[in-house]
Amino acid sequence: MTKTVSTQASPAAISMGPLSLKPDGFYVIAGPCSIESPAQFKETAQFVKEFGASILRGGVFKMRTNPDSFQGVGLEALSWIRDIKNELRMPLMSEITDPRQLPAMLESLDAFQVGSRNMYNYELLKDLGKQNKPVLLKRGFSALIDEWTKAAQYIVQGGNQSVMLCERGIRTFETKMRNTLDLASVAYLKAHESYPIIVDPSHGTGAPELIAPMACAAIAAGANGIMVEVHPEPSRALSDGFQALNFEAFKNLMLQIKPFVEAAGKTLVTHV
Amino acid sequence: MTKTVSTQASPAAISMGPLSLKPDGFYVIAGPCSIESPAQFKETAQFVKEFGASILRGGVFKMRTNPDSFQGVGLEALSWIRDIKNELRMPLMSEITDPRQLPAMLESLDAFQVGSRNMYNYELLKDLGKQNKPVLLKRGFSALIDEWTKAAQYIVQGGNQSVMLCERGIRTFETKMRNTLDLASVAYLKAHESYPIIVDPSHGTGAPELIAPMACAAIAAGANGIMVEVHPEPSRALSDGFQALNFEAFKNLMLQIKPFVEAAGKTLVTHV
Amino acid sequence: MTKTVSTQASPAAISMGPLSLKPDGFYVIAGPCSIESPAQFKETAQFVKEFGASILRGGVFKMRTNPDSFQGVGLEALSWIRDIKNELRMPLMSEITDPRQLPAMLESLDAFQVGSRNMYNYELLKDLGKQNKPVLLKRGFSALIDEWTKAAQYIVQGGNQSVMLCERGIRTFETKMRNTLDLASVAYLKAHESYPIIVDPSHGTGAPELIAPMACAAIAAGANGIMVEVHPEPSRALSDGFQALNFEAFKNLMLQIKPFVEAAGKTLVTHV
Amino acid sequence: MTKTVSTQASPAAISMGPLSLKPDGFYVIAGPCSIESPAQFKETAQFVKEFGASILRGGVFKMRTNPDSFQGVGLEALSWIRDIKNELRMPLMSEITDPRQLPAMLESLDAFQVGSRNMYNYELLKDLGKQNKPVLLKRGFSALIDEWTKAAQYIVQGGNQSVMLCERGIRTFETKMRNTLDLASVAYLKAHESYPIIVDPSHGTGAPELIAPMACAAIAAGANGIMVEVHPEPSRALSDGFQALNFEAFKNLMLQIKPFVEAAGKTLVTHV
Repeated sequence: MTKTVSTQASPAAISMGPLSLKPDGFYVIAGPCSIESPAQFKETAQFVKEFGASILRGGVFKMRTNPDSFQGVGLEALSWIRDIKNELRMPLMSEITDPRQLPAMLESLDAFQVGSRNMYNYELLKDLGKQNKPVLLKRGFSALIDEWTKAAQYIVQGGNQSVMLCERGIRTFETKMRNTLDLASVAYLKAHESYPIIVDPSHGTGAPELIAPMACAAIAAGANGIMVEVHPEPSRALSDGFQALNFEAFKNLMLQIKPFVEAAGKTLVTHV
Repeated sequence: MTKTVSTQASPAAISMGPLSLKPDGFYVIAGPCSIESPAQFKETAQFVKEFGASILRGGVFKMRTNPDSFQGVGLEALSWIRDIKNELRMPLMSEITDPRQLPAMLESLDAFQVGSRNMYNYELLKDLGKQNKPVLLKRGFSALIDEWTKAAQYIVQGGNQSVMLCERGIRTFETKMRNTLDLASVAYLKAHESYPIIVDPSHGTGAPELIAPMACAAIAAGANGIMVEVHPEPSRALSDGFQALNFEAFKNLMLQIKPFVEAAGKTLVTHV
Repeated sequence: MTKTVSTQASPAAISMGPLSLKPDGFYVIAGPCSIESPAQFKETAQFVKEFGASILRGGVFKMRTNPDSFQGVGLEALSWIRDIKNELRMPLMSEITDPRQLPAMLESLDAFQVGSRNMYNYELLKDLGKQNKPVLLKRGFSALIDEWTKAAQYIVQGGNQSVMLCERGIRTFETKMRNTLDLASVAYLKAHESYPIIVDPSHGTGAPELIAPMACAAIAAGANGIMVEVHPEPSRALSDGFQALNFEAFKNLMLQIKPFVEAAGKTLVTHV
Repeated sequence: MTKTVSTQASPAAISMGPLSLKPDGFYVIAGPCSIESPAQFKETAQFVKEFGASILRGGVFKMRTNPDSFQGVGLEALSWIRDIKNELRMPLMSEITDPRQLPAMLESLDAFQVGSRNMYNYELLKDLGKQNKPVLLKRGFSALIDEWTKAAQYIVQGGNQSVMLCERGIRTFETKMRNTLDLASVAYLKAHESYPIIVDPSHGTGAPELIAPMACAAIAAGANGIMVEVHPEPSRALSDGFQALNFEAFKNLMLQIKPFVEAAGKTLVTHV
């Protein structure tokens, strides 16, 4: 099959803050599921930077199944975030859940994440197509690859070529894992599309002992980066603590992926 | 199991326009997938009213997988709609796809539909909880029943008790049907929740020959109503024509469901 | 679409013991999951006959996920079975799990059931095609309709036209029910094939409170019969007790399905 | 979690023909989907041996969805097989589809494969537990990991500890690939069980361009080997030609996996 690249993002074109993505670079996006306090965020950000992450993640607006669950700190966190990421000189990516959050988030963030629950939220995607910061588009819970790339086109057709796709597991009958990480989607997208592909083994498995092997497998399948949740004390996290890595586990993960990044002919980009 | 009804909608409480839903009433919601022109909408509305529909449906803003597909007539259609439904004295339900559409839609519509793609769009659901027109919440493509009822709670907790749930098929491996209509979800919800349950056999099967038997099965499973797509000339529809009923097929459907509505101890509500 | 009937079973052709299936008849197949003792089987058989079942079911060889679970009484039960069903003048259907059981089962049973785990066991199906007792072929856990009807052809091509298909739920992500009962498969098969279709709402839901509504829905979707598990004391059953109906619940089920059988234009066949 | 190893196979214990599996060895099982002729089999076997396969595969009895499709050469092929594999000093694995084939196959083969369609065929598994040649147990189309390991116990409890598990993709809604290769199942099984795990990227993707990246990903996820279909002329294969590698593609696959086998700390075992 021939690649259909006419209207699509090119990896080389993506910049976030001080960082420009290179086709043979490998990128680790790390940080807490939710940003809970300036101290928790800064401690985590410093640690993941020291051990090789190049992009920070952290949720400000959280989409939670249960309306009574913690919904994120919200707008207030945006000021903390900006100071910390500027001090560390690291780009920060965070999830947008409503087009009306766009102006405030544009001032503080380097890249937007669209979560699985919003992959089909075409009005949000159209708005993200009209600004120029990169967008990481997570696959919907049971989205066909074809629906996912067409959703990306809602952004691209608005004029924003800086789209990355994130495989985070699909919903199947299997119950041992939170989701079924579909790494063949990564290989398929690398063969047929031009988007940089990120894999999220934290949501993709929901099981800490599977994150490192699935991160390695993602690299071998062709991923350009991984996104993982890290928390100083997972058991006290306000959201998804069960799947977060503690600092020691993150350090081990970085050691474990190293030979696979090399085997894949890529270079881990660790600082700008 | 006991029903958990404390914060939930009661069927008796739901009114839309001139119509108040009764627990033993059975309701047919019918109309075109997309409202294409005043003539197409009026002709369809008159026909479905004559043969027993009590609520009109019609899409103004369409969510389409492909960004190049017809996206609905948009705001302009709201004026046509209002005149036609007032003349026919029938309530009208239409899909909202962005919270920013709410003010304009509130003026013209009697009830809101939230499509499968937006079931997890909690910001939209919160806004719909702050107004008082009924909301039909369709199940997400692969939403767990538990996620679906929790999504309904995002509306209810805002103060709007008028929530109806709509089963429209889930995504499975089977390819003969567009979706797998999960009628056990209807029986489950009738046993454990208080929401009125509507079934959409048009999207639920995607196959005209399966719409009537699945409508009958939905009634037997406990549904309070069905929603079907009707078009004067399905092969010329601007969206989803392959699953629309023509007028003759709609008339036959109404004849076929009659004995099952009676067997279920319900009464078809045909006009107000 | 046209029906493709050339090599297929015709409902009228199926006879089991004293019973000949009629196209407008509706048949209730009932009995315990496992035959545990002559007393348990006889008590159950008498009760279900009295309240309207026309065919007995009862497992002799059980396929269990766990090798340490009860595997059925085995060959020894075949003698009990024969005496009881002859005395009651009711045909008996039981599951075959290995082609080597065929000679012994042929002497005692009126029809064979092939369970979901064996739908793809083509060697077994070929052997069942070479004898002439009816075969009820259950759908595999995630079998495509196309695979299911092609599996039926393995029997038919051997010369045995007496094949019935049994929808018993497919495997999906939903966890409230044991399986997702796919009633659109029933409507599809009635529209496109000639096999009699039976629905098993016991396995199809795994939840006693959903069996009656899903039995009614199956009738409305076009089923020719249902198969349910009944046990004198479900909580003491040696297999699948959680989904068995007790006698009172079976009696209620028979009352509940009555108006739907009539609405479908069929007649409940209660004795021969 | 602790490993539950009491009744399970240990990798070190598995021998097939002249080959004894080592925990840090990596094994490529290769050959045609169906053995079609002595020439086709020998040519393929010689080629895959030369480029690094250590175990031969080749179907003699084929399970085909369509009863009119090619069903394998059958018993006649067993003599060809024996001579060729003895000459090449390579162990041969082939699929058993009926317990009655066991005596004849025991004479000619070094290991048995149980296909996805027979994973739940417990009578066959029990018989395979009573002989001592290794068994490769493929995962059922939608088998839970828990059902799969319990099926393996049917073999182990019969006394045969030489069981290997083969992930070959599960059935999901996605249509770009034939199946969804669940590599997290590999990581899970390596973390919680002791069976050697083989991955079949040919069936797992059904797409030649995805076989090499998914083979690499399987290695990174912890697999002990891969099984691939190779044919001298895929377009003329009697079964599954669309997913077979030609010789050139197999050679490239062996080059591509090399750095990942090393990154995983394993050694490719290429000859005995």
